[in-house]
Amino acid sequence: MPKFKLNTHISARFNIELENLRNSVLTMGGAIEQQLSDTLIAMRDNNRGLAEKVVFNDLNVNSMEMQIDEECLRIIAKRHPAASDLRMVLTVAKTTTDIERIGDEIERIARMIAKGKLPDSADIIKNMLSIGNHVMEMLRGTLNAFARLDSQAALLMYREDEKIDAEYKNLLSDTVAEMQRNSEKLEDWLEVLWAVRALERVGDRCKNICEYVFYLTQGKDMRHSPMESLQEKLEDLR
Amino acid sequence: MPKFKLNTHISARFNIELENLRNSVLTMGGAIEQQLSDTLIAMRDNNRGLAEKVVFNDLNVNSMEMQIDEECLRIIAKRHPAASDLRMVLTVAKTTTDIERIGDEIERIARMIAKGKLPDSADIIKNMLSIGNHVMEMLRGTLNAFARLDSQAALLMYREDEKIDAEYKNLLSDTVAEMQRNSEKLEDWLEVLWAVRALERVGDRCKNICEYVFYLTQGKDMRHSPMESLQEKLEDLR
Repeated sequence: MPKFKLNTHISARFNIELENLRNSVLTMGGAIEQQLSDTLIAMRDNNRGLAEKVVFNDLNVNSMEMQIDEECLRIIAKRHPAASDLRMVLTVAKTTTDIERIGDEIERIARMIAKGKLPDSADIIKNMLSIGNHVMEMLRGTLNAFARLDSQAALLMYREDEKIDAEYKNLLSDTVAEMQRNSEKLEDWLEVLWAVRALERVGDRCKNICEYVFYLTQGKDMRHSPMESLQEKLEDLR
Repeated sequence: MPKFKLNTHISARFNIELENLRNSVLTMGGAIEQQLSDTLIAMRDNNRGLAEKVVFNDLNVNSMEMQIDEECLRIIAKRHPAASDLRMVLTVAKTTTDIERIGDEIERIARMIAKGKLPDSADIIKNMLSIGNHVMEMLRGTLNAFARLDSQAALLMYREDEKIDAEYKNLLSDTVAEMQRNSEKLEDWLEVLWAVRALERVGDRCKNICEYVFYLTQGKDMRHSPMESLQEKLEDLR
């Protein structure tokens, strides 16, 4: 009986540690959501001060990543987690890398606004905001899927990226049309182009996180399914 | 005595496993070097067939990443590595993610060539090749630093990225000038722009790997040193 109790006790504490680890990721995710939300407000209102705040806040996100990585190491070294728990901890380490890089993409968008380079086109801004809101939903849904380790939700969000890609392609061709009309301001428009691409990249990174959730819950690797990848490559080259 | 022997034996086998793991990363790195080298040849000779080969070969790189990830999991679960070995295994997992994404960037460049979208400017191609060769050196140096766990070499390669960034900025402004001259072909030039940016991104990813090597050998995290990051952000906003 004492042994059983001891095990339960260790396991309970370990569970708490794993739970804390997941909560740390969610806190980091929440910080990123706030960053994106502030960026979209700054974009809507052309608020350069708020955009600057986002740029500097990115430092906090970076230090969160390092803390969580250290925590992952500590847990593995101390607890020797077995198969499924180990997958969980490694997934956390990979997820924080993606969250940190989502932060970098958001910062890139905020920097364009902070530098006063918002495009001189209400339509383009409107469409950037529209993709931005869509990406925001995807980010929130992805973090929720991670929080609840919900593979169905992860799959749903994973598929959402296709729609974002379609919107992105439209926005890209609108942006190129504007660049053609304003070719003397091409350098400024490039900043817009990088920001548009950064929005799309946030979607890609959410997709990575969905893959990790799927892997964790289903034990199947969604990354690079050979047939699907081959198909994609063939279509891309056409 | 038997116990000591057993430990040595276990440790020796563990060393072999760690060594094999590192070798797998180097094999994956070698495949990526080959991909970049083929891409640069395809660029020089406008060889669309070779570029297509690179696009399809990326699938092999992807499956190498998944195999190495599984091997990392297996080793941690079986061997319960202690602090420094554990860092090593986790670094391998993070490194393969970056190598895989370097592969994606290279594929992006190859795809431009495969689609026959090489720019109609000998100067731009010459400068792309020049950055390409520089990036190739950085990639090779980074993989060597990883192979020998050489923090000095890692630091040297880390700093190399600044030079690549400077070349990138020049090439970017030349590309924009060409885009202005050929604004009717802006969509084609965008493909060039993405390829130029992809080259620069390979440098960034090598930098990530150098950071991991530094972390592994020195136990210090080079990522996001707060003062340096703050400085960078201030300069960027000017």
